Amino acid sequence: MEKPAETNTPIHDSLARRWSPRAFSERPVEREKLLSVLEAARWAPSSRNEQPWAYLLAAREDIANFDALLGVLVDSNRVWAQKAPILILTVAHTRWQKEGTPNRVGIYDLGQATTNLVVQATSLGLSTHQMGGFNVEAARARFHVPEGWEPVTVVALGYSADPETLPEALRGREIEKRRRKPLEEFVFSGTWGIPSPLLESNGNK
Amino acid sequence: MEKPAETNTPIHDSLARRWSPRAFSERPVEREKLLSVLEAARWAPSSRNEQPWAYLLAAREDIANFDALLGVLVDSNRVWAQKAPILILTVAHTRWQKEGTPNRVGIYDLGQATTNLVVQATSLGLSTHQMGGFNVEAARARFHVPEGWEPVTVVALGYSADPETLPEALRGREIEKRRRKPLEEFVFSGTWGIPSPLLESNGNK
Repeated sequence: MEKPAETNTPIHDSLARRWSPRAFSERPVEREKLLSVLEAARWAPSSRNEQPWAYLLAAREDIANFDALLGVLVDSNRVWAQKAPILILTVAHTRWQKEGTPNRVGIYDLGQATTNLVVQATSLGLSTHQMGGFNVEAARARFHVPEGWEPVTVVALGYSADPETLPEALRGREIEKRRRKPLEEFVFSGTWGIPSPLLESNGNK
Repeated sequence: MEKPAETNTPIHDSLARRWSPRAFSERPVEREKLLSVLEAARWAPSSRNEQPWAYLLAAREDIANFDALLGVLVDSNRVWAQKAPILILTVAHTRWQKEGTPNRVGIYDLGQATTNLVVQATSLGLSTHQMGGFNVEAARARFHVPEGWEPVTVVALGYSADPETLPEALRGREIEKRRRKPLEEFVFSGTWGIPSPLLESNGNK
C-alpha cells in the first residue's frame, strides 16, 4: 500500500513515500538490497566520525535468532512484526570509544544512521517500521549487548502487504490519515516558542 | 566541492553525496528550499508520532540572533560556521508530551528528523554540517529552552565553497579521504560481536 505524505512543500520522493506499515509480506529481502540499506547506514554522519551504532540482524529463516528478537517485543508489536522477513535491533554506543566518557549524541547519531537505512530501503521499494516498544534489558541480556551500549529500537524491514492481511483490530490504524504538527509549532527563531519569520512569505529570502 | 562516499554497494545519490564541509559560501538559502528541508524533517517517523523535535533558526542577516547562536559554539566550530547563511539549533523533547515521563527515544527521533532535513538539503544542492561542539547550557539559557527539552546539535546549512576559502589550518581536513568502519564491525546476528552471516555472499538470500 502507498500512503504518501501530504506535504505543504515538495520533498524528496524517498522521504514522502516513507511510512510505517504493520502489514508485511513474507517475501524475503534480496541480499543486495539488504547490503545497500546497511551501506547507507554506514555512511551517515556522526560526531567525531565515531559511528556509534551497531545492528543485530535476525532473518525470519534463522528461527532461533528471529524468535529471540521477536520475544523481546511488546505484544502489540509482536502480533504484526512476526511476519516481517527481517528484524533489526539498533544499538547506540553511549560512550566515546577512546575516552570511555559519556557521548551525549550517541543515540542521536544512531537515529541518523537508521534514517539513512530507512531512506535507502524506501528508495528500493522496501518498507520499514521502527519500534520503541520492546524490553530493552531483555534484549541486552539475550544478545549480550555490552555495557556502554544501549538498545534503542527494533526495525521491521521488508515488503509491505495488503492491510487486509492484518488482524482486524489493526486494519483501521493502517489506513488512517498521516498527521504532523505544522512548522509553526516547532520552528522558532530568537527565542523558544516564537515561530521563525523565515517561514513567512514576506520573511527572509 | 563534491566528495562522494566510496561505497561498496550503490546507495541513493542524496546519501552518497552528503558530506560535512567546513567551507560555506555566503550565498543565502532560498526560502522555498529552506521550507522544503524543514518540511522533510516534519515528516520523519517518531515513536507514538510524538514528533519530539524543535529547531531554532538563525539567518546570517538577523545579526543579533545569528551572533547569539554562533556565540555558543566552541571556537573550532565558530571559525568556519560564521560564514554559513543559516544555523539551526536542534532540540529534543526528552519527555512524553502527555505523561511528562522520560522519552528514551526523544534524542533518537530528533536525529531522524534532522537526517530527513539533511537528505532533503543534499537533494537540493545544499550542504550541511552538524556540530556537537557547543555549550548546551548556554544555548538553553540564551534561547529559553524549557525543562524537558535538550539542545543536541547545531546544523550549518548553505552552499559549500572552495576549500581555499578556509583558514589554512582547516584546509587539510576538508579534502581528506572519507572513512567508515566495514559492515562486519557493526552488523551482527545472534549475539554481540558476531558478524552477520547475511553479509556473506553464501548467506541468506
